[in-house]
Amino acid sequence: MPSPEPAQLAAALPTGRLLTDPAKMAPYRWDRALDPDAGTPIAVLCAKTTADVQAGVRWAAQHGIPVIPRGAGSGLSGGSSAIDGCLMITVDEMTAIEIDPLTRMATVEPGALNAHVKQAAAAHGLWYPPDPSSFEFCSIGGNVATNAGGLCCVKYGVTTDYVLGMTVVLADGSVVELGGPRLKDVAGLSLTKLFIGSEGTLGIITKVLLRLVPAQRPPATLVATFARLDDATQTVVDITSAMRPSMLEFMDKPTINAVEDVTKMGLDRDAEAMLIVQSDEPAGHAAVEIAQITAICEKNSATEVFDTDDVETGEQFVVARRMAIPAVERKGSLLLEDVGVPVPRLGDLVRGIAQIAQRRDILIAVLAHAGDGNTHPLLVFDPSDAGQSERAHTAYGEVMDLAIGLGGTITGEHGVGRLKKPWLGDYLGPDVLALNQRIKKALDPAGIMNPGAMLD
Amino acid sequence: MPSPEPAQLAAALPTGRLLTDPAKMAPYRWDRALDPDAGTPIAVLCAKTTADVQAGVRWAAQHGIPVIPRGAGSGLSGGSSAIDGCLMITVDEMTAIEIDPLTRMATVEPGALNAHVKQAAAAHGLWYPPDPSSFEFCSIGGNVATNAGGLCCVKYGVTTDYVLGMTVVLADGSVVELGGPRLKDVAGLSLTKLFIGSEGTLGIITKVLLRLVPAQRPPATLVATFARLDDATQTVVDITSAMRPSMLEFMDKPTINAVEDVTKMGLDRDAEAMLIVQSDEPAGHAAVEIAQITAICEKNSATEVFDTDDVETGEQFVVARRMAIPAVERKGSLLLEDVGVPVPRLGDLVRGIAQIAQRRDILIAVLAHAGDGNTHPLLVFDPSDAGQSERAHTAYGEVMDLAIGLGGTITGEHGVGRLKKPWLGDYLGPDVLALNQRIKKALDPAGIMNPGAMLD
Repeated sequence: MPSPEPAQLAAALPTGRLLTDPAKMAPYRWDRALDPDAGTPIAVLCAKTTADVQAGVRWAAQHGIPVIPRGAGSGLSGGSSAIDGCLMITVDEMTAIEIDPLTRMATVEPGALNAHVKQAAAAHGLWYPPDPSSFEFCSIGGNVATNAGGLCCVKYGVTTDYVLGMTVVLADGSVVELGGPRLKDVAGLSLTKLFIGSEGTLGIITKVLLRLVPAQRPPATLVATFARLDDATQTVVDITSAMRPSMLEFMDKPTINAVEDVTKMGLDRDAEAMLIVQSDEPAGHAAVEIAQITAICEKNSATEVFDTDDVETGEQFVVARRMAIPAVERKGSLLLEDVGVPVPRLGDLVRGIAQIAQRRDILIAVLAHAGDGNTHPLLVFDPSDAGQSERAHTAYGEVMDLAIGLGGTITGEHGVGRLKKPWLGDYLGPDVLALNQRIKKALDPAGIMNPGAMLD
Repeated sequence: MPSPEPAQLAAALPTGRLLTDPAKMAPYRWDRALDPDAGTPIAVLCAKTTADVQAGVRWAAQHGIPVIPRGAGSGLSGGSSAIDGCLMITVDEMTAIEIDPLTRMATVEPGALNAHVKQAAAAHGLWYPPDPSSFEFCSIGGNVATNAGGLCCVKYGVTTDYVLGMTVVLADGSVVELGGPRLKDVAGLSLTKLFIGSEGTLGIITKVLLRLVPAQRPPATLVATFARLDDATQTVVDITSAMRPSMLEFMDKPTINAVEDVTKMGLDRDAEAMLIVQSDEPAGHAAVEIAQITAICEKNSATEVFDTDDVETGEQFVVARRMAIPAVERKGSLLLEDVGVPVPRLGDLVRGIAQIAQRRDILIAVLAHAGDGNTHPLLVFDPSDAGQSERAHTAYGEVMDLAIGLGGTITGEHGVGRLKKPWLGDYLGPDVLALNQRIKKALDPAGIMNPGAMLD
């Protein structure tokens, strides 16, 4: 169809909120997945208010223009990649955060960074737990749209566990308020929960009400290395079936080495696996928990076990873990996986990934939020090497097939986006996929909301 | 329309699973809401398997017969009341429970009682937290269908926080598996969450996968009485803004007296309010928390504060609290409310309810899961007194109107059912109500699943 003039939309908005200059629009074409197939928007709306978003969606609905919502652009599954002829609506300038310490709630605009919400909460002695590794540069809107996870989720749950309500602009441009400041509320269908993780396919979230909890206690940290992979994964099973650590992270040998290359902190380059575990139980009890974890590691032939109740020393290992993705990224372009399996299948998954890496002759570094079976295989490739790129993309799919075969999911916390969509049907099966499509069609009959992401 | 012969359905089922004898069907006409408008089913299907449920729904779908799903029949909003000409499908004989201690998960059939799930988990040192006061006689299927809450939810969350997956028979008789044994999973829309709290309007849940946690630590208990209501509600605000007790319950004067009538345990009949608070922090730390709570109570002029770390002594107060509903029930028939408000509005709600009680000249006893603002006003009336019954029903609606006016919800944990449906639109507003109806229509276009409950 011929593109309508965005000038009409620009006129309905305050000055300067609509970009149509290709150079100015360019940075908005890709999210962090750097999808080579990203298209070109006809305009980018830099929304500052719900009304701006509403004006954009109304105009798009009127003209049948696809709308791509965008937060901080840190998505790893291409959920915010532009498609040709779309209206990109970015909420990255909607960053207000209000804390109510009395009810322990935060009212947050979607462009506010996760880290800024944490800081604002901390100023009142409060804590917003969900902590994607990207917490310093990912936004709450994207966190909610993907039901983002993170490191502390093994004990404290994921984004959906902290969202009490939201404002959403629906596909017809109408605005609804879902949920609200009520800790228990079962009146009507769980629509708030439905929009969490919907990846912009049902509407655009323009405000979120979050539940906060009292500040986390300073954690004690344990680091253990293993000469055999199976010993490390058995340790994970033994720990998670016995207690609830506040963090339980895994790095394989390629990851350990990539991190050591950057940090020179003295990690054991020969170790097949390393676990980073934290306990935030009250003082005294954390020591008991750390002692139990130490015993489990030793029973499983850990080559070294180190623990500290010094918060800064512990944090250095967490920073090392968070640095894993940028560290591996120095070795080439990445395809970033986030498949998850039931915890007892973690060893099978990691071993299977190593076989895929060998078969496809590419480097795959695996790190994991091991405590909930959620892994991040990082597939490294040189985009200028066509053969290697192709092998990496083949491996990317094979990792998802492997996870499905092990009773796992194709995405634990990043979302389906455009990159993982081809596998969604294999994972869900045709019946559940059809159920997804029925919901999508009910809320977005014209299919203008983020088409091509998650669902067709 | 003329009723089709249930014999055709009976033939498709194993012998004895379909009741059509009015005397045998009678106990299935009402749930615990005892809706006087309950109708008469054409048949009651006592399902033992998912296939039985499927056969029933298929037959109903084919003939356009309304289907009413039923678990233990303990619902308080009339969500399982029969309507004339319906097929009642009861899953109360589907009671299997399997625990996997390695992954801390329970696979549970919907008719299993909450208490039995707790017991099965406890046998492995594990805990299923959600604890409606009716936990000894309510079923997991109903808990999931209403997103049931309870007493420990103030710290441990509600049913939805513990459901990882489910098997559902949809309105066309097809069966889908939603979610599964994956602690993080964001592939596709959050359909598991959508079915939780859907009150049988979207399908019938025939199996549930629950997340368990390590056993709760033995709690310390504090009981405080107050001569002024405002002091008690201010205490609730002060406690919840400063810490996370594992229980924070409230009883008003009529409730205290009704419980004392039955238990003769020496409760202060003159107190305007009583709080029962628990801390399950590790030993030592619980004492610190209890000391903080004591200080808050004393600051707010509590007339008496008693605490104990003896679990049995503490449990006596919890049992007294759980006995509140049956104790008040001795005074007459009940209309059981479960309105909730933001915690700082608790005092306004309780005061407003007392005004309604006075204006309508009926007894309203108020107990509350105070820590999350979720109250249970119990409206007492004599059903043989037409005027009093009418006043009680008027007051029932006025309590919901009051809650809505205070930014609260019409139902915090019981569900909308048939009794609260007339207020759902007032609470949600027409736009969100319409959104609910769009989802309902997408999944149950013929409207056969529990028609008249929650949605029209």
